[in-house]
This record gives sequence, C-alpha cells and structure tokens, in this order.
Amino acid sequence: MTEKKLLLIVCDGLSDRPAAEFDMKTPLQAARKPALDALARHGINGIMDVIAPGVIPGSDTAHLALFGYDPYKVYSGRGPIEAAGAGIPVLKGDVAFRCNFATVDKSMKVTDRRAGRIKTGTNELAQALTDMNIDGVRAVFKEGSEHRAVLVLKGAGLDHRVSDVDPHSEGKVRQSEALVPEARKTAEALNEFVRKAHEILSEHPVNRERIKKGLPPANIVLPRGAGSINELEPMAAKYGLRCAAVAGVTLVRGICRMVGMDVPDVRGATGGLDTDYAAKAAAALSLLKENDFVFVNVKAGDVASHDGDFRMKVRVVESIDMMLGMILNDLPDNVIIAVTCDHSTPVSVKEHSADPVPLAISGGGGRFDGVKEFDEISAASGALGRIRGMDLMPIMLGMADRAKKFGS
Amino acid sequence: MTEKKLLLIVCDGLSDRPAAEFDMKTPLQAARKPALDALARHGINGIMDVIAPGVIPGSDTAHLALFGYDPYKVYSGRGPIEAAGAGIPVLKGDVAFRCNFATVDKSMKVTDRRAGRIKTGTNELAQALTDMNIDGVRAVFKEGSEHRAVLVLKGAGLDHRVSDVDPHSEGKVRQSEALVPEARKTAEALNEFVRKAHEILSEHPVNRERIKKGLPPANIVLPRGAGSINELEPMAAKYGLRCAAVAGVTLVRGICRMVGMDVPDVRGATGGLDTDYAAKAAAALSLLKENDFVFVNVKAGDVASHDGDFRMKVRVVESIDMMLGMILNDLPDNVIIAVTCDHSTPVSVKEHSADPVPLAISGGGGRFDGVKEFDEISAASGALGRIRGMDLMPIMLGMADRAKKFGS
Repeated sequence: MTEKKLLLIVCDGLSDRPAAEFDMKTPLQAARKPALDALARHGINGIMDVIAPGVIPGSDTAHLALFGYDPYKVYSGRGPIEAAGAGIPVLKGDVAFRCNFATVDKSMKVTDRRAGRIKTGTNELAQALTDMNIDGVRAVFKEGSEHRAVLVLKGAGLDHRVSDVDPHSEGKVRQSEALVPEARKTAEALNEFVRKAHEILSEHPVNRERIKKGLPPANIVLPRGAGSINELEPMAAKYGLRCAAVAGVTLVRGICRMVGMDVPDVRGATGGLDTDYAAKAAAALSLLKENDFVFVNVKAGDVASHDGDFRMKVRVVESIDMMLGMILNDLPDNVIIAVTCDHSTPVSVKEHSADPVPLAISGGGGRFDGVKEFDEISAASGALGRIRGMDLMPIMLGMADRAKKFGS
Repeated sequence: MTEKKLLLIVCDGLSDRPAAEFDMKTPLQAARKPALDALARHGINGIMDVIAPGVIPGSDTAHLALFGYDPYKVYSGRGPIEAAGAGIPVLKGDVAFRCNFATVDKSMKVTDRRAGRIKTGTNELAQALTDMNIDGVRAVFKEGSEHRAVLVLKGAGLDHRVSDVDPHSEGKVRQSEALVPEARKTAEALNEFVRKAHEILSEHPVNRERIKKGLPPANIVLPRGAGSINELEPMAAKYGLRCAAVAGVTLVRGICRMVGMDVPDVRGATGGLDTDYAAKAAAALSLLKENDFVFVNVKAGDVASHDGDFRMKVRVVESIDMMLGMILNDLPDNVIIAVTCDHSTPVSVKEHSADPVPLAISGGGGRFDGVKEFDEISAASGALGRIRGMDLMPIMLGMADRAKKFGS
C-alpha cells in the first residue's frame, strides 16, 4: 500500500446554527453545494469539538489543535503567532508582542489608538525602529496591515510574563510591569524601547508630513499580548510530511509558519470576502505535487458571520463549493481530502461559538457511511462520530496509511 | 446575543435495558411521554457516560460529574455529602462519617446493625451526643432518617484515611485504625467518641424506654465512610451562574449544597414514589426567575427499579412527562433545557448499571437533529453523539452563549 497525500480544507467559521428567518436552516443547509455534498457522500462524516466540548475555539488555538498540537501546552499569547505571520522568526527565548502605531499628546496620553488608521509610511517608520539594541536586548520591529505591527525582543533572560503598554482605550501610555520577578529585564527593555521609539517617531519625516496634512502622527507604538514560543516540533519531523499552506490571513499564516509549513504568497488570496477562490484551488493542486500535506484556509465564512449576513454566508458556501469542485476535478487518486471548520460562528451570535463543527474525509479507498450532505446535522450521523480537533491529524494519517503501529 | 438560562432535569436511574416480558422495550420506550418526545424532537440528542464508559456511577459521583466537577479529584467518601445533606456544614480540614445507630451486647458484639430500624427518639439521642469535645477535637453529630446519622470531627491535624468502626455485619465493633500515620489522631478521637457515645446512650431514657418495650436499644453508633472535602469551587464562581436546586433526597441535596446551590424545601417533594410532581414543576419555574441555573432531581425511577417493578417505572416516566409538560407550558424562551439521568438502573438488575444514559437538550435557537423520541436507543442517533457527564455543563454553557473563548 503506497502512502497517500493529505489535503485539509478549513472553512473558517462556516459552521452555524439554524436561522428562524431562513426556514430553520443553517447556511450550509440552505446553500447549493454539489461538491461538498459529493465529498460527504463518498467519505466518512462526523462532528468535531475543535478544542473540547463547550470550549469556544480561537482561530489560533483551533488551528494548532487541527495540526495536532495541544493548544493548552503550546499556546502562550497571540504575539508570537502574529510575528510569525509577519515573517519574523520567533525562536525559543524570544518574547513577541502585537503592537499598534498610535498617537499621543505631550503628556503621553493616547489621543488615537490607531493613528488615524494610518495606511502608508508604516514601512519607513518600522525601518527606523527595528534592530534597536537595549542593554544587550535586540528589538526587531515590523509593520503589519494598516496601524498594526509586531515587536520581537531577542536576548538572554527574557520572560513573556509582562503587562501591556497599550492602555486598550484612550488614556495614558502604561509602563509595562513584570508579573513575575523573572520578567523584570523584559519589562525594562520594553519600556525603554517604547520611550526611544517615541523619540524617533516624533521627529520622523513621515509624521512631519502627516502633521502638515492635518493627520494624527504615528508617534508611539503600543505593545500588547506578550508571548513566547514553546518547543513546537515542526510538522515535517512530527509526521514525516512535507507541508505547505494556502492562507491569506496573517494570523493563520503565522501558525502555519510556526509549525514549519511552506506558506507561499498566492496572488488574490486575500483572507476576505473578495478572495480569489480559483487561485486558491490552483495553488492547492500545484502544492500537492511537491508536498505530502497541503492545508487551505478560507476565511470568508467567518467574515460574513461577524457581519451577521446570512445571505452572504450562503454565497460564501457556494463559492467554497466551486473551489472544492475545481480541486476535485483535478485531484490525483492518492489524496485523502478533509473539509471542516476551525470553529462555528453563528450568524445570530456574530462571534465564535462552542457548537461542534462538521467534518467530511474522503479518498484513498477509505470507508463511506451513507451521509448525503455536508452540514452540521447530517455530519453528526456519520461514521466518524464525535471527535476532537487533536484527533484529526492521527485519523487522516491512518487513512493515508501513514500511521504508526503500537505493539506487534 | 443575550446569555440564556439553564434548566437541568435529572431523572434518577430512569435509563434502563429492554425487558423480554414487555415486548423488548425499556420503560422509556414503553411509556406514553409526549413532553419528553417533544423535547427530543426540538433539540439535540445523545447518549452519555456519566463518569466514563463501563463505570457504574454512584448518585453522588454522577451528580458531581453532571455539575462539571471531576469526581476522581473531588470525591473522597460519602460522609461529607451525607453531612452536607443533613445540614452540617463540612469545611476543609473536617472529617465526616455516615453512621448507624445500632445495638450491641455487653461484649460489644453488634446484635442489630440498625437498632430495630429505630424511627423515633433519634433526635434526642443525637442531642445527647453532639458537640462533644475529645482532646480538642469537636464532634458534631446529627440524626438522619430512621437509624441513620452523620458525624463530623472538627479540629486541627485531622485526616480521613481511617478504617470504619462499623463491622458491616453482625460482629464485634471495630477499633478504627489509621491507614496512614497522619490519621492517627483522627482514629483515636473517633474511637474515643464511639466509647463515650456508648456510655451515654446506654443510660439514655429513650433506650430505657425501648428496653422496657422489648425493642433493641440504640446503644452505640457505628461510623463508616470517612471523607473530607477537597476545595470545591462554588458553581457561582466556577460558571458565573446563580444556582438553585429542587431535590428531595438527602444525598442529592447534600451535593447541591456542597457546590453552593440554593436548595429550598419544596413541600411534597419527597424523593420517593409519592413525590409531588406538580410542586416540583412549579418550584423549578419559580426558581428560574431569580437564578441562571436550576437543577431538578426526580428520584422515583431509581426507586421503582430497586423494587424491580417495570410497570411502576413506566408510571414514573409518565409522571415525569407530566411534570415536564407543565414546565414546558410556562417556560420562558431564553432557557436551555436538558433532560437526562444520573445513571441507568435496569429493572432486571435492581442496581445501578454502567449503560450510558439518554440526553436531550433543547431551546435558545440551538440545533435540532430529527430524533423523534426520548429513549436510550433513539438518543444514540442524535447530533450530540456520545459524551461524558463532565462535558454536559460546558456544552449547555456553550448553547447558552456563556462559554469562554480560548485563544483569539
């Protein structure tokens, strides 16, 4: 038996609850989705608690679990994931932060937490701040989208247990405090970085230009969400798989990089409602040639739910179905394909919920269970039963004849 | 999305096995139960291993699990639960025992382990024993129903790891022994309490009267089931819910008190076959006004099974159905309602069994799965799959939009 390849498609937040105003159907039940239903019909189906029953998954913890990493062991704050997403390698011992460019007045009171949602010039501002040396601690700084940025402190004796500089509302800039004695050096370096950054940014040509135009200057950075990396064994070593990802959202790209996946840029894959589904399908098929495991994330369902837009979510289902159809048309025989969600985001709630998500796995001569449709309720009667996110990789590896034997 | 309230109805021992002499039906399958079936039809269904597959739950450990407390961590003997049920607060450091009033002869041989199932006078006997001081250890003693009583030792340096005084059959009264060196003080205080209690009881007017009437005197107490309380975080703190319970049985009332529920007395709620179902329904609806979580226990199904009475158990199902109907008629929209059992008690076994129990959860705009009846087999094909007792509270909290998010 030859080992098969794996394709995992995660539809962010697509799982939902029935809507009274739409005939008590969920968006998955209301949509026309021949490809998703074909996948369910040719495979085995089930429902999945991505973290555990009754726990609302974050997108970050959910993806860690889906890749087979126990989020309760490896997750410590969003900073490192954002940094990895922005392309700064975070190593063991580093401490990473999410940051905002913001505007302060002379008394260091925050007057705009997003510096007027600054869109241009942040690359130049970041260049002026990065690679700063603070008593032997190196500060690596990089801009993200709009007012967002990331900071990684590198050096000996750092600890992520420090409080935020960001006041999280319009108030005085906070001094970071060590939450444990071991973190004193980190808090001091962080405060010194923020002070020096304020000096540099206040005099920066980009900000002089903004002031001239009547725009709020990005004259401070506000770090928050300190985190450090626990040992994350790369997927290549953990499973013996060459892995690649197609994902548009920074957060998800960050997680994929942290577990050692190749994450090429796919033109048009935006992570938004306007993402290029055909480009994602083509990229997935192409990456399957050189890789053993390909992961695809589609964010749009979650976006439609956060907007509370049922009809838009039905359209997202139909777009995903089209993407899946394109993939299935050209998929080699030796690929096990799984479609699921990282969490439910009911349109009625507009936030993630703890409801379990549907899962269908097909291909490679595996079992099939007679489930005819891909949705939250049909899946529950399938042959996979109710599993947890951490079970998904072992089950897929088993179906791909790549699992390990225990005993003889 | 507003947070919803929770109503949990536990039908003690109602879950069963098919009976050959009743057309291979379980009592739930044989009964007419329109309200229970409506609940199943409008909700999601599943089966539940209250502790774990193949573990026979006690009513005490089962309820702890259903309330989200790991019984393997928090349960140490039935003494503290019985004491809490009898209204003696058991604090950290106390050691509690279940006791029998019994009869011994002059050689301290037990001649009747239940003192002729003594029914009257135990309150006076208990009054004569309670608040005894033994070398700095305070002994609080209280009568229970019939020959039953509870003892709580209070003082520094106590430990519950001591053997029973109760010989559990008609033999010599045992000396309690310390099972670990740290429990020596407890064993000594316990033995001294039993010795002094024997002195006091032998001379007590209630017993002189009994001897005069030819009844066995309650001239000794036999403690057993030593236990102490581990930190039990109150449900209010654990879940942020104001909690109340409707329960007639002392043991269940004790558990509810231990987890910080309000447990008002409900006239007519006896915990027996003669319980007033309408009074329970009214109490549940009334408590839902002031509380976020209301728990209702109905003991009668378990009683019918212990008596091996299939027809009686069918009648209990129909009475519970009537109670549920009354509740559903007046239930506000914002309540998630769950009906399940704490364990199976098959009529054919007359004891608890490890068979999983049915579970239906409905309300609050949640999913529904097409299951049409509430019974052990129909439930197994529902969208909840097979869960554990410890999962119930998290799942209900998730459906009530009260779950916590892990990650971002």
